[in-house]
Amino acid sequence: MTVIGLGQMGAALAGAFLDAGHPTTVFNRTPEKAEPLVARGAVRAATVAEAVAASGLVVVCVLDYPAVRDLLGPVAGALRGRTLVNLTSGSPEQAREEAAWAAGHGAGYLDGAVMTTPPGVGDSESMILYSGGPELLAGHRAALGVLGDPVDLGADAGLASLYDSGLLGLMWSVFGGWLHGTALTGADGVPAKEFTAVSVRWLRTVSWFLSTYADQIDAGEYPGDDATIDVQVATVGHLLHAGEARGIDGRLPRLHLELMKEAVAAGHGGDSYARVIDSFRKARPSEGSGS
Amino acid sequence: MTVIGLGQMGAALAGAFLDAGHPTTVFNRTPEKAEPLVARGAVRAATVAEAVAASGLVVVCVLDYPAVRDLLGPVAGALRGRTLVNLTSGSPEQAREEAAWAAGHGAGYLDGAVMTTPPGVGDSESMILYSGGPELLAGHRAALGVLGDPVDLGADAGLASLYDSGLLGLMWSVFGGWLHGTALTGADGVPAKEFTAVSVRWLRTVSWFLSTYADQIDAGEYPGDDATIDVQVATVGHLLHAGEARGIDGRLPRLHLELMKEAVAAGHGGDSYARVIDSFRKARPSEGSGS
Repeated sequence: MTVIGLGQMGAALAGAFLDAGHPTTVFNRTPEKAEPLVARGAVRAATVAEAVAASGLVVVCVLDYPAVRDLLGPVAGALRGRTLVNLTSGSPEQAREEAAWAAGHGAGYLDGAVMTTPPGVGDSESMILYSGGPELLAGHRAALGVLGDPVDLGADAGLASLYDSGLLGLMWSVFGGWLHGTALTGADGVPAKEFTAVSVRWLRTVSWFLSTYADQIDAGEYPGDDATIDVQVATVGHLLHAGEARGIDGRLPRLHLELMKEAVAAGHGGDSYARVIDSFRKARPSEGSGS
Repeated sequence: MTVIGLGQMGAALAGAFLDAGHPTTVFNRTPEKAEPLVARGAVRAATVAEAVAASGLVVVCVLDYPAVRDLLGPVAGALRGRTLVNLTSGSPEQAREEAAWAAGHGAGYLDGAVMTTPPGVGDSESMILYSGGPELLAGHRAALGVLGDPVDLGADAGLASLYDSGLLGLMWSVFGGWLHGTALTGADGVPAKEFTAVSVRWLRTVSWFLSTYADQIDAGEYPGDDATIDVQVATVGHLLHAGEARGIDGRLPRLHLELMKEAVAAGHGGDSYARVIDSFRKARPSEGSGS
């Protein structure tokens, strides 16, 4: 394997290859960053050209897509017949452009997103999302599997980046809701550790709701059997009042209430919460909706 | 057991007692609601007094706390020596008041919150939060366990309601972040079911982050080793741009960015995301913070 880019993430990726016993060549613009990896058995390439030439599988993880092109542009001819795995963060549009560029040079291309922090690399519980080449991924699954569990998102190279953004958005939302609840219960003396233990169990229940709601969204039908938006709107009041009584910032629950109220105003108060997706899509034509 | 209040949730609670083979007396202002339960073996009480007299354990689940008092006030004397389990939704202040009222009448009191929808009642995976009487809960754990897994939050009767509000806030945040991501990936043709399967796995990873961050909050120290707020701020840009390019509403990610930027402005950009709790606490003196 070759790993180009030895920031925290790139170094973790190279380390996982080394831990799994793979001969690994590394390259970084600032060569000192390679030293701890060389001490663990990596070969340091003196140039990008040498790094690319060393392996059929070339993993690149640098600051952004322009940095990828700066590094690989001059050695594009050498990529022919190799597989480029780009784990650099960027936009779906950049990923699609990079896939076309790689194809134009006869290289296989997988775009990817590492869904963990560097210490989580190498853990089989960590997801690494790949898109742009299901067959390529199948061919390299054993090698890439040492970095984390490879999740195949299909042929559209842009999807790993798009999922990455969507999942980080979900993460920030979880963080926000959890921090709000931790501040709220903390105001009455509950340690964060205690509220969090219950929160983590609760997320398993909430995950179950998501699966039910996903089917509703795909079907474009939002039966509110168990808990309608109207019921949720009534319940937000308890949260807002409890927060106000404790001096906790209410921007986050107020935004959720605003989103729910848009669904109610559109006549969907008797639907399930999944109907609130219309509030996110509203600049677009609503799918599966009569409104 | 006695169950007072046979709305969707109350009926599910009574049904779980019946399924477990407990002799169960039920009461509802509109007596017809008892019929399906009577058909399953429940005894219908003609009056609240009769319902209270029938059992040592009296579970009440009605619209709100004033409704509890309207029902039980006239029969307060009959509560002496019994245990009142109040699963009605309300505020922590209401729960504490109700606990004092019950104590004043010689009744044991447990306040509770059912953390599932009615169909999830009776599932051992579902949490039922209790507060106000650890010893009482211990004494009735076997009986209450048939409703769902009893989680003891300690002696302060207000905590079940406070947790309930905080956990619902977390749920709406999860829903919001997930719906945003579903709308975002859906714009590029990804079915909700596919994005959701990855989201559910991702929530397990995010849960792991929460446990780490909880310890930081309790310690009042927020080392940003793996992923600083500065790094997250840089990454939100991808999400905002991807959303704008697809016409997806950006209020939710913009709010998260605003909260993060407050931490950065306070000089905490190098800290972990857990430091964003200061943005929620900001009307209160910041704990464990030099700012």
